[in-house]
Amino acid sequence: MSTTALQDTINQAAGFTAADFVIKNAKVVNVVSGKIELSDIAICKASGMIVRTHERHIDGREVLDLEGELFAVPGFIDCHVHIESAMVTPQVFEEAVLMHGTTTAFCDPHEISNVLGADAFRYFIDSAENMIMDLMIGLSPCVPASGLETAGATLGADDLAPFIHHPCVYGVAEFMSIGAVLDHDKGTLDKLERFANCQIDGHMPFGVSTAMMNAMKSCGIRNCHENTDIDHACEKLKRGIHVFIREGTVCKDAKRLAAMVNTFQSPFLGLCTDDRNPVDIAQEGHIDHVIRTLIAEGADPVTVYRIASWSAANHFGMAGRNPKGWKPRGLIAPDNLADIVLLKSLEDCDIHAVYKKGERVSAAAFEQRRRVRPIGYGSIKIPTVPAHRLRQFGDPVNVPAIGLVPDQVVTTYEEITLPVNQHGELLSDPENDVLYIAVIERHGRSHGNIARSFVKGLGIKHGAIAVSVGHDSHNITVAGATIEDMTLAVNEVIRSDGGKVVVKNGRVLGRLALPVAGLMSDKTDVLETARDQIDLLDAVSALESPWQDPLTLLGFLPLCVIPDAKITDFGLTRFNPAAGIMRPTLVNDQRTGSPPA
Amino acid sequence: MSTTALQDTINQAAGFTAADFVIKNAKVVNVVSGKIELSDIAICKASGMIVRTHERHIDGREVLDLEGELFAVPGFIDCHVHIESAMVTPQVFEEAVLMHGTTTAFCDPHEISNVLGADAFRYFIDSAENMIMDLMIGLSPCVPASGLETAGATLGADDLAPFIHHPCVYGVAEFMSIGAVLDHDKGTLDKLERFANCQIDGHMPFGVSTAMMNAMKSCGIRNCHENTDIDHACEKLKRGIHVFIREGTVCKDAKRLAAMVNTFQSPFLGLCTDDRNPVDIAQEGHIDHVIRTLIAEGADPVTVYRIASWSAANHFGMAGRNPKGWKPRGLIAPDNLADIVLLKSLEDCDIHAVYKKGERVSAAAFEQRRRVRPIGYGSIKIPTVPAHRLRQFGDPVNVPAIGLVPDQVVTTYEEITLPVNQHGELLSDPENDVLYIAVIERHGRSHGNIARSFVKGLGIKHGAIAVSVGHDSHNITVAGATIEDMTLAVNEVIRSDGGKVVVKNGRVLGRLALPVAGLMSDKTDVLETARDQIDLLDAVSALESPWQDPLTLLGFLPLCVIPDAKITDFGLTRFNPAAGIMRPTLVNDQRTGSPPA
Repeated sequence: MSTTALQDTINQAAGFTAADFVIKNAKVVNVVSGKIELSDIAICKASGMIVRTHERHIDGREVLDLEGELFAVPGFIDCHVHIESAMVTPQVFEEAVLMHGTTTAFCDPHEISNVLGADAFRYFIDSAENMIMDLMIGLSPCVPASGLETAGATLGADDLAPFIHHPCVYGVAEFMSIGAVLDHDKGTLDKLERFANCQIDGHMPFGVSTAMMNAMKSCGIRNCHENTDIDHACEKLKRGIHVFIREGTVCKDAKRLAAMVNTFQSPFLGLCTDDRNPVDIAQEGHIDHVIRTLIAEGADPVTVYRIASWSAANHFGMAGRNPKGWKPRGLIAPDNLADIVLLKSLEDCDIHAVYKKGERVSAAAFEQRRRVRPIGYGSIKIPTVPAHRLRQFGDPVNVPAIGLVPDQVVTTYEEITLPVNQHGELLSDPENDVLYIAVIERHGRSHGNIARSFVKGLGIKHGAIAVSVGHDSHNITVAGATIEDMTLAVNEVIRSDGGKVVVKNGRVLGRLALPVAGLMSDKTDVLETARDQIDLLDAVSALESPWQDPLTLLGFLPLCVIPDAKITDFGLTRFNPAAGIMRPTLVNDQRTGSPPA
Repeated sequence: MSTTALQDTINQAAGFTAADFVIKNAKVVNVVSGKIELSDIAICKASGMIVRTHERHIDGREVLDLEGELFAVPGFIDCHVHIESAMVTPQVFEEAVLMHGTTTAFCDPHEISNVLGADAFRYFIDSAENMIMDLMIGLSPCVPASGLETAGATLGADDLAPFIHHPCVYGVAEFMSIGAVLDHDKGTLDKLERFANCQIDGHMPFGVSTAMMNAMKSCGIRNCHENTDIDHACEKLKRGIHVFIREGTVCKDAKRLAAMVNTFQSPFLGLCTDDRNPVDIAQEGHIDHVIRTLIAEGADPVTVYRIASWSAANHFGMAGRNPKGWKPRGLIAPDNLADIVLLKSLEDCDIHAVYKKGERVSAAAFEQRRRVRPIGYGSIKIPTVPAHRLRQFGDPVNVPAIGLVPDQVVTTYEEITLPVNQHGELLSDPENDVLYIAVIERHGRSHGNIARSFVKGLGIKHGAIAVSVGHDSHNITVAGATIEDMTLAVNEVIRSDGGKVVVKNGRVLGRLALPVAGLMSDKTDVLETARDQIDLLDAVSALESPWQDPLTLLGFLPLCVIPDAKITDFGLTRFNPAAGIMRPTLVNDQRTGSPPA
């Protein structure tokens, strides 16, 4: 701040001069005291900071009088989000979520960095610098997430280090490799030591023991958003691991965790969305939806608004002045960013308007930004896949397979018996909900790896689905009832330069193009992507799966850092911490030693 | 942490190997959840960190079994202390307070830096590096505290800047100059801008308006320990200014503020001692005494222990990993320093043992430290003062004087009528509790300034008292019934190279030598200094003051940044914010333009 700006701040704060902008007669929710007070809020426009509040009759050069009709709460903070799951670019993401009150988000570009490496950090930083909301970027520490898959890049501590001091970078994101920590893996410990004085986010899903929690926490890992069980979450919390309550598209935890929300624990909680698709954002909302869900479950509203704002800001070192020069936030109080959400009702969290740095969020404001050109075109670096490479042969008895678990991304390990044809080829069994599955390496960094297996529980009766979103390496993942439809689906993904495809009886029924790293649309309107997603789900309904979105489910089946049976381009993997298996192991190695004929 | 150390931490945390030291079967107070749980606490000795807890039956190479008899709470944090008020050096201070559970203290070397300038920072840093407790040092921003006094040094932003990145330095201490902020004083705004991304402590005593609070908070000032009125403190709190509850020797605020202590507000509170003399530390305790006082007033014990530990650590950015590499603290949880206080009763806070970084605090441990040689000898840089320089002449009607207010350091401005002798000399009037007072510049940086006035309410019937501790510039301050005894007292302070002196009828009744900058004893046992202080108070009782410690009261009479009438070596000052006077003004300029004859 220049001396003149500081003088201006002092003058407006002390009331020597009128404030630039005053929101008058708001029902201000004070998340310090827990009280709600009718008050004005004075904002210095040059800094975007609140300079004066908790009093009335403040003079303003510009005034908005709420006449006691609306509540004012601090802007919401998403503690952990993968923007890629919204299938839009960061600037389009902000258009979708700012209206829902999310004024700051801590994102982990884990998906795109698995495809593009450090270029993904540069792209997200460039985007963050041209956004209205504060997009804080975590450096993805697990690229690749395991040693059992081919990602588009490999990022070591030396690759992350150049970015750590950037003001848009908040620290190290989701540190998933628990097994590697316990095994003293050199590259893993290297990162923990290099970034020992930084924020490091955690990942401790159900099944992670208290011993592993102790170890991860002792390595400086401070939070976890993988909380599907309240007792498990409480074990983390009491060890000082901050618990982020998530409402994503696939993982919906708020109802299960609502009983943790109390005043005493409130500083150690946060809200997040993790993975949320554009349809859910458009239809249900974002952090506002998490807030509504918790309050509907009986949580105290003011406590929930504290968790959505100050608790999150405080966790990330943004509640006060800080070495990175981030502006403090999380309170409606002086020296806090004027990130303010106006609500008609606290319980319903029905948003009337959102102010970011004292400016009303509007379509016109979005028009002012420099549009950042997406990167990551041409990320599908493989030729057409012939049908024969998807076929499987062998003993049809005790064939290892993946078993789906309803409403979860964890899976089971199954051994099944399959039909077989006269050539000894193992066949799918849609009648018994057994389908083919395959993962095709698409970064051009292996010798054409294609792994094949079977999946039970996806529920598709006909055709095939294929996606270039396959966590975490984002190879092409395909599942289906017939080899022919699978082949068509995979090649349609390749032809589209990435996306999601639905095929039935040799016809492409639906296609969502995701040309940005094979993960995101380059359309500039989130509603268009939401509509594309709705069309895709319409198309997939022809395959008669009981799941609303089997394509997203399919995309989690290569996620071998989540238990139990998964499939990567290396082959089928297992990871069962409940049985003492601390990291994924390869069940059947299907790697291609040399380029296929 | 080296890779080997990290591996060791992981192994002990995960239970792969026995922990170095385990405290077994403690009633662990969890200030995250608010619950008390019978649990073991495993400590890795190499790092001094807790690695594993909230479970039982942990294997340890060394074990202490509490058999469920004792509570374990996180080490206490003093959020704001002037060690100089304990009249001992930092290493002796820690011997006094560590036994009372204070494992971390945020100190402001404001007194010694007013005498010695930046050398004081070097001395405190050197001391901190050779202590067991964590002494965190704030850079004193107000040296001198006002423009109306001669201090031993003048420290600008350039003088503070070289120290700000030192790991023992937590930020900028007590920013007192509210008037200078409101007046846009250049040197003051310069400091606020240079340290805009740093912690800056506040000072907003009763009388500071909400407008001034807004201005100070908007400048990044984040806390206040000057809370003598609960409504005034709540005005700060709701603006996001953290409120530190103080129990010093002169200022005792805990009873008045106890009703603020509730679960919701607990993250925004802290405990402090500010100025506490060695007798009170020895007899009543330190932060443990603040805890006891709050609980006795009805505050919830677990909430009080949270405020004493995590809330304080969190405020100062020490609750998690941080850019300065400070070890996290404030919880009994993994990745927290093993700063643990064992108590027989939560309510009584009766300390059984204190562990710092997992080591039991003991006399033997203190012996291991390198003794840091005190500095600041020879800080009284003036010759003997002749009696005539203390005499006052003039109109005996409406003479401006200082009025004392019981139990407070604020004063009133009085106009009194005095006796006068045949030479026109104004005389003291001990019958009506009116005494002479004078401040003698002792740094050798003026032309022999001596300011004289009268004080009402000190209650001394005979003799005189003189001190080289005179906040904040620490010139020699003397008050008494006769000019002869005052002259003897002043010259005895000079002859002693600093200290506190009691004189009656031409005889020195008591003397406490403070040769370290004229502020602190160089004795190496706090109990000896406490005994010296008790002897001094015994001596002063002969002067028949109703105050237990009129010498300390006298030392606050030059403190012109506190309202209202005060006296510095420049003359009598006034500062009455309730009347809109934002900073001290000089009532009668008594500066000596040239060296006296």
